[in-house]
Amino acid sequence: MTLKSKEQYIESIGKMKTEAYMLGKRIPDVTKNGFTRLALEGIGQIYDLSRDERNAEMLTRGEGSGRFNVYCSIHRSREDLVNRVRVARLVCQNTGVCTGSRCCGWDALNALWHTTFEMDSRLGTDYHKRLAKYATMVQGKDLACAGALTDPKGNRALKPRQQPDKDVYLRVVEEDRKGIVVRGAKSMIGGAVGSHEIIVQPGTGFSEDERDHAVAFAVPLNSEGVVQVVNAQPGGEAKLKDSFDKGNVRFGSSEALVIFNDVFVPKERVFMCGENDYAAEVVSRFVLLHRMVLGGCLAGCGDVLTGAAALLAEYNGLSRQMQDRLTEMTYLSEALYAQAIGAAYEGKASPSGAWFPDQLLANVTKTSVTRLPYEVQRLAEDIGGGMISAMPSELDLKSPKIGPLVEKYYRGTHGVTAEKKLRVAKLVESMVAGPGRLGALCLHGGGSPAAAQMTIRQLSELESKKELARKLAGIEH
Amino acid sequence: MTLKSKEQYIESIGKMKTEAYMLGKRIPDVTKNGFTRLALEGIGQIYDLSRDERNAEMLTRGEGSGRFNVYCSIHRSREDLVNRVRVARLVCQNTGVCTGSRCCGWDALNALWHTTFEMDSRLGTDYHKRLAKYATMVQGKDLACAGALTDPKGNRALKPRQQPDKDVYLRVVEEDRKGIVVRGAKSMIGGAVGSHEIIVQPGTGFSEDERDHAVAFAVPLNSEGVVQVVNAQPGGEAKLKDSFDKGNVRFGSSEALVIFNDVFVPKERVFMCGENDYAAEVVSRFVLLHRMVLGGCLAGCGDVLTGAAALLAEYNGLSRQMQDRLTEMTYLSEALYAQAIGAAYEGKASPSGAWFPDQLLANVTKTSVTRLPYEVQRLAEDIGGGMISAMPSELDLKSPKIGPLVEKYYRGTHGVTAEKKLRVAKLVESMVAGPGRLGALCLHGGGSPAAAQMTIRQLSELESKKELARKLAGIEH
Amino acid sequence: MTLKSKEQYIESIGKMKTEAYMLGKRIPDVTKNGFTRLALEGIGQIYDLSRDERNAEMLTRGEGSGRFNVYCSIHRSREDLVNRVRVARLVCQNTGVCTGSRCCGWDALNALWHTTFEMDSRLGTDYHKRLAKYATMVQGKDLACAGALTDPKGNRALKPRQQPDKDVYLRVVEEDRKGIVVRGAKSMIGGAVGSHEIIVQPGTGFSEDERDHAVAFAVPLNSEGVVQVVNAQPGGEAKLKDSFDKGNVRFGSSEALVIFNDVFVPKERVFMCGENDYAAEVVSRFVLLHRMVLGGCLAGCGDVLTGAAALLAEYNGLSRQMQDRLTEMTYLSEALYAQAIGAAYEGKASPSGAWFPDQLLANVTKTSVTRLPYEVQRLAEDIGGGMISAMPSELDLKSPKIGPLVEKYYRGTHGVTAEKKLRVAKLVESMVAGPGRLGALCLHGGGSPAAAQMTIRQLSELESKKELARKLAGIEH
Amino acid sequence: MTLKSKEQYIESIGKMKTEAYMLGKRIPDVTKNGFTRLALEGIGQIYDLSRDERNAEMLTRGEGSGRFNVYCSIHRSREDLVNRVRVARLVCQNTGVCTGSRCCGWDALNALWHTTFEMDSRLGTDYHKRLAKYATMVQGKDLACAGALTDPKGNRALKPRQQPDKDVYLRVVEEDRKGIVVRGAKSMIGGAVGSHEIIVQPGTGFSEDERDHAVAFAVPLNSEGVVQVVNAQPGGEAKLKDSFDKGNVRFGSSEALVIFNDVFVPKERVFMCGENDYAAEVVSRFVLLHRMVLGGCLAGCGDVLTGAAALLAEYNGLSRQMQDRLTEMTYLSEALYAQAIGAAYEGKASPSGAWFPDQLLANVTKTSVTRLPYEVQRLAEDIGGGMISAMPSELDLKSPKIGPLVEKYYRGTHGVTAEKKLRVAKLVESMVAGPGRLGALCLHGGGSPAAAQMTIRQLSELESKKELARKLAGIEH
Repeated sequence: MTLKSKEQYIESIGKMKTEAYMLGKRIPDVTKNGFTRLALEGIGQIYDLSRDERNAEMLTRGEGSGRFNVYCSIHRSREDLVNRVRVARLVCQNTGVCTGSRCCGWDALNALWHTTFEMDSRLGTDYHKRLAKYATMVQGKDLACAGALTDPKGNRALKPRQQPDKDVYLRVVEEDRKGIVVRGAKSMIGGAVGSHEIIVQPGTGFSEDERDHAVAFAVPLNSEGVVQVVNAQPGGEAKLKDSFDKGNVRFGSSEALVIFNDVFVPKERVFMCGENDYAAEVVSRFVLLHRMVLGGCLAGCGDVLTGAAALLAEYNGLSRQMQDRLTEMTYLSEALYAQAIGAAYEGKASPSGAWFPDQLLANVTKTSVTRLPYEVQRLAEDIGGGMISAMPSELDLKSPKIGPLVEKYYRGTHGVTAEKKLRVAKLVESMVAGPGRLGALCLHGGGSPAAAQMTIRQLSELESKKELARKLAGIEH
Repeated sequence: MTLKSKEQYIESIGKMKTEAYMLGKRIPDVTKNGFTRLALEGIGQIYDLSRDERNAEMLTRGEGSGRFNVYCSIHRSREDLVNRVRVARLVCQNTGVCTGSRCCGWDALNALWHTTFEMDSRLGTDYHKRLAKYATMVQGKDLACAGALTDPKGNRALKPRQQPDKDVYLRVVEEDRKGIVVRGAKSMIGGAVGSHEIIVQPGTGFSEDERDHAVAFAVPLNSEGVVQVVNAQPGGEAKLKDSFDKGNVRFGSSEALVIFNDVFVPKERVFMCGENDYAAEVVSRFVLLHRMVLGGCLAGCGDVLTGAAALLAEYNGLSRQMQDRLTEMTYLSEALYAQAIGAAYEGKASPSGAWFPDQLLANVTKTSVTRLPYEVQRLAEDIGGGMISAMPSELDLKSPKIGPLVEKYYRGTHGVTAEKKLRVAKLVESMVAGPGRLGALCLHGGGSPAAAQMTIRQLSELESKKELARKLAGIEH
Repeated sequence: MTLKSKEQYIESIGKMKTEAYMLGKRIPDVTKNGFTRLALEGIGQIYDLSRDERNAEMLTRGEGSGRFNVYCSIHRSREDLVNRVRVARLVCQNTGVCTGSRCCGWDALNALWHTTFEMDSRLGTDYHKRLAKYATMVQGKDLACAGALTDPKGNRALKPRQQPDKDVYLRVVEEDRKGIVVRGAKSMIGGAVGSHEIIVQPGTGFSEDERDHAVAFAVPLNSEGVVQVVNAQPGGEAKLKDSFDKGNVRFGSSEALVIFNDVFVPKERVFMCGENDYAAEVVSRFVLLHRMVLGGCLAGCGDVLTGAAALLAEYNGLSRQMQDRLTEMTYLSEALYAQAIGAAYEGKASPSGAWFPDQLLANVTKTSVTRLPYEVQRLAEDIGGGMISAMPSELDLKSPKIGPLVEKYYRGTHGVTAEKKLRVAKLVESMVAGPGRLGALCLHGGGSPAAAQMTIRQLSELESKKELARKLAGIEH
Repeated sequence: MTLKSKEQYIESIGKMKTEAYMLGKRIPDVTKNGFTRLALEGIGQIYDLSRDERNAEMLTRGEGSGRFNVYCSIHRSREDLVNRVRVARLVCQNTGVCTGSRCCGWDALNALWHTTFEMDSRLGTDYHKRLAKYATMVQGKDLACAGALTDPKGNRALKPRQQPDKDVYLRVVEEDRKGIVVRGAKSMIGGAVGSHEIIVQPGTGFSEDERDHAVAFAVPLNSEGVVQVVNAQPGGEAKLKDSFDKGNVRFGSSEALVIFNDVFVPKERVFMCGENDYAAEVVSRFVLLHRMVLGGCLAGCGDVLTGAAALLAEYNGLSRQMQDRLTEMTYLSEALYAQAIGAAYEGKASPSGAWFPDQLLANVTKTSVTRLPYEVQRLAEDIGGGMISAMPSELDLKSPKIGPLVEKYYRGTHGVTAEKKLRVAKLVESMVAGPGRLGALCLHGGGSPAAAQMTIRQLSELESKKELARKLAGIEH
């Protein structure tokens, strides 16, 4: 069995000595920095959950010594797709945040699995073989792979070839027998700072003379020339050390801009290079999976938030009065989950053997994901009361001078200490107002709301629906 | 093969000579009355669709000469539950209305399948055997079975035993070796007028001294003492003869109050008699199925309405401008469908071998069904324009005097005749404002919105969600 | 005082002997036809309410013998605009339907008051004098004036001059010293059948070579060549005679296509003729008033529906359980009202002395009107229960054979008779599903939802809002 | 003229040397601390706006040397109430945050104006005279008065007299000829740290033996025994120094728990002392004003957010595609504003001469305020794109090492620098996710959503609505 423990995972990341910056300075050791450590703990939780035998069926694949983490697997059946959604919910229930990394890498692996197979079949390339080998390596070493998609794009009204600075779309700047050199950046890479590898997918819509942008590959994040700019709020680091002011005391989220300053990629790690006609296919398969999966993620985070709101209601002696609001929170989270399961169940196998969800229902799930969690958030704030936006810090509570006053005036019902109440209220606050809040998870993950709606329009089969109406209205075509 | 054609079905109903009243008068022949005929055509469509070989897998079960209509079947697998939802969507796409009857009978059969099995196992009764025999008979003769559930209830603040008139809950008034005599009524029986049989389920919540209300059975609708009051709008009959003013020119909906005036039920058709502890179980299994199925029904009706709205946009030369609204209609219908599939997929087998959907997700689907279709309806009226509520009648169009003026001023884009435009506009009107409108289908089918919300509350497992929150907030229990 | 009673009004309409058709046949006497009589009763209610001294301040203007109905007045102050909204609510509270006629005539009078003043000032015409004289006549005789706006439009993708049949936009076909001859039609004219006069406004967006469409005028509805096609459902007439099946037993709504077959209009009744640059101004002033007023109308209808739902809850013994839903209904109706009052208060005087609401807030009110009433309707159906879509007819209740059974099984709590319950349930049904339902009132009155949104966009002053943001973000322009 | 400039105001606050704590430590000088300084700048903006002659009519009252800030005034007319809403919008447009203080003090002054008048009339007390004198003093010195209402409440299931610690409801612990001594705390006091005075209102629902809690008074915030615990996020202070990472670079929000450790209040500053029957009246008048005013506040903040979203759309070259979403944002903000104006217009004078908004419409406005801004926020995040939750810090941009890379990859359309884009994106982020986000402003200000709904229910006049329905359904009472 190749499954790493959280400790082994964190240690392995520490050894990589990646070039990561935060708040304008290089992070000496990402396992020690308060902010990034929390993100690593979040990804690490996936490692620990996977070693728990009770989760074996859900979180591992393969047998005996070949058993590996499901996050490195290819979906081989309808059940695997359903499992994908359940895994997302389970992990979010246990972390309360989007850990990013492995989840995006998983989807990238599956998207490329399909597309490289198509390319090899039609173009006689050997990308699929390279990818299969890469996948086996990743499974064997139980690596955390980030998935990269979004280019900075510069002026969106211009095409890639019209950009003053061509690097705003990542591209190949050199190519020889041994490999390629790439330049550019990918933005909003969830969990990059806690990943061993980054799987890079191309953008979409490249024409013949934009072929150098049609590139897919994977590299370790400590490769020469790979620079991460980890997004963080100033002061964030300070507050995260052993403090419950951060809300979620155990796990965190992180996103980074990952820059490729003329990075060399050996040939066997290149999975597309110039096949511009296939770039869109990678993207569309990736977001297809991601748009379904979000239903599970937001249901899981919704569960946590519902539980936290229920606790606050209890601490305030208002459980009965808040009952209908709590039920509505449950309804909203389960509606997301049910849609994701529906999208999974209606999925189909691709010729590569990889399964993908139903495209229409996955985009329907995503559209719901861009709406319902805002109501979940609103209800949590409603139930939590005014303190969600106005409460003292842990430092106030611990101050000898004013701590006793905070304790006196924030005590809850039936001996609930101010600390308990503040801890839960800060968890809620972090989920509705912090950088890892629901909105940040749900709105642009897997593409913009507008992109999902456009896909629904394209798949809405209006002509056949018109025909249904014509028959019932008694109209000949 | 035992599958009847629509014609055979209608003929068989005609021969039954049921005692049905409408608008205060007895209907001499329900196959000839304009209103009830349309309802029969709707149910008949299920018969015809089932004989279409392209639908064989979806709409029939069994092999060779034993092949029978899926509407008389027991759900034997997860796939059967998913199929249940797909059938509902298919039928509604092809009828545009709730035909009632067979659908409720199907759910009643499954609910009783489970409950009679439980009773036999625990109480040593032989209800399940009787029901199995009954099911085989129904399959063999391809009968349309209505399903009955709702008692009139009188004063809802009083318990059954406190009612001034005990008959407001249907009950056993006599019992002997050969059978029982029942008195009371069941309201809102969809498609009763077009059914061969009615399967009667008990209400819920009966105590020991209300045992005479805990009764389940099936009788032909032409049994002595069975009286139907078919709900109709005065004038409705007139307009339905060969007219497109009815909106949906081919199919109709019907509901009836079915009264049991001391009706004798032979022993082999009695499936519960006095087992008050099991009454609630029948109801909860029935609504469990129904609350899931509605997701399919409303998606199917939504498809028709989306198609009709798209036609009107086209006839008015506004297809492009209405594009986003049409996409939203598609999104809403598919969201319902996806949730229903999710509820089906997460279903489980009961000891009887019958499968039932996930209770939480089925109630989530139902809750969505009480909300989303109103937005679908609103969008259809928006796209359709002001004529939806204000347009001339077919009689105006056909009048020699004013017909040409109506034609002149209602003509559409690119040679679309006024008739075409009016036909589709009237179809939309019937689906948003007629008695068979979406709202009528979605709000109280399978129980009230409040009942579904109460079930969600009961299943919301707040304690385990609180535990998730406690862990992330760092709180000991 | 010139105020007519309802009886006098109805008698005066009867004497006009207008050429009105319904269901393909000419109506011999619109005061006797079951359907049109109800519409006349509705308009008549405005007459009766206006003679009630308690409403004098709200419903009349002028003093002593010069006192006249507010429906014939020009808004002379901010308070007049606020009063406009209150009148709409009061009337709808007392009729439960959109009576159409006088309300649209009122807005048309004010829109033309402004535009004729502008034309006279700039072009030296004498339209405003003609209109002032016309207004005085109408006030003196207390006439009900319908307001006409919407042309049939044919192919909406084509401009008026490109239409194969130019008459799809009403136009002047002849003109001489004495007056003009007009041909065309106006659709969706509320209450035309109960109006003395019709005030015709032009469409919008006519170019120089479409000047013959830029025409405004008023004629009595019994003018030679004026033909009405009253929109009705077949069978509707039958059911409306002395029956509570119609839901609202006292008042009705009506809409008609009004056709002008070469109708002569004397010069003094022509208020625009060829001034294509001013056509848009009439329309925009008319809809400006109407979009505000709808907030009052829908609040008034919402009050009735809330009351009806509260009665059903009471009859079913469920008042407490339905309390939150009833509160939400109140909230929604009051939100509409508050917005309309806001739009009125922020209004301004035009140079003509007529006051108009704030354009942005009036369109905001209209946008709310296209959304909130659907939720009001949904809640009413929810509270009303399943019988809203499935209940017996009055004819069933009165049948000697089945009437006692209907009584037995539909009786309510605490001695509420089946008749009472059915009457209220049918009122709700007529307001959520009949031709006079809320949706029909709210969606396209005063123009489509899209038109209101476009106006909001035009008035949204994004540049000044960007400037606010720039300042707070610390950005130089 | 008594109007202070921002500088004079800040200087005067600095001299007070209040006892305020943040993050567990005493703040040496609230005018120098990065966090509190921003809050002072926000309140200071009101001072500066009031001295701008263009705002004189809106922001000042009185004439010549007696001219004073409107924030210290009593509403003397309907127009004053409308002005109240406009002031709220104007100030929020110019600050982008809730500055708290003066706004709550203004409402408290008016609420007490009414209640003290009532008490004096009926009980023969002289509270109103004291208050009038206090108001004159405040006007003359142009003081910023915070308003206090919410007690910590401890276990909400218990009444004040049942609390283990009676101080969880603020109370009088001593009383003599010269004044009273009070103990307890008030939570969520907006802008306390930037206020000269705090006007304390009682809670509600005190019985005869809880009279010591029925106390109203005003004291300077540097009174002996007054301790503030300013709510802040750790690290917050650091980031606020000259950084655009804070989003809104100019103004901030602050809330505090204000503790009264046996504070002496001289008699002339006591406005209620033991009159428990009148406590509820103060509260209900205060929230009545506040619930209306929030419509103006959220409209103003909505304007800023709409402008910021429009800028981001422009910088990304997506203005056209985001047009409908921006229009929806405008609609939502204006709907809030229109409702608030409606509530103001329908207001009435109280016997004291102070005007108050319509109670029903004010609560309707508040209910809308708890819902619509969440959709505004969602749309802003949608338009802003994924960077709203994942962008580099100003420190990254200014770092010599990675700054150029951030600039390269975050540059916008047409020469928009990364700094511009980041500044606006951070402004949006602070308004949707920071402590001063819309949700924090709208949900619990002026009481909980549930409290507003309860008030609507109490005012919904169901009986008169039932009567409307009965008439139209033809039912005798």
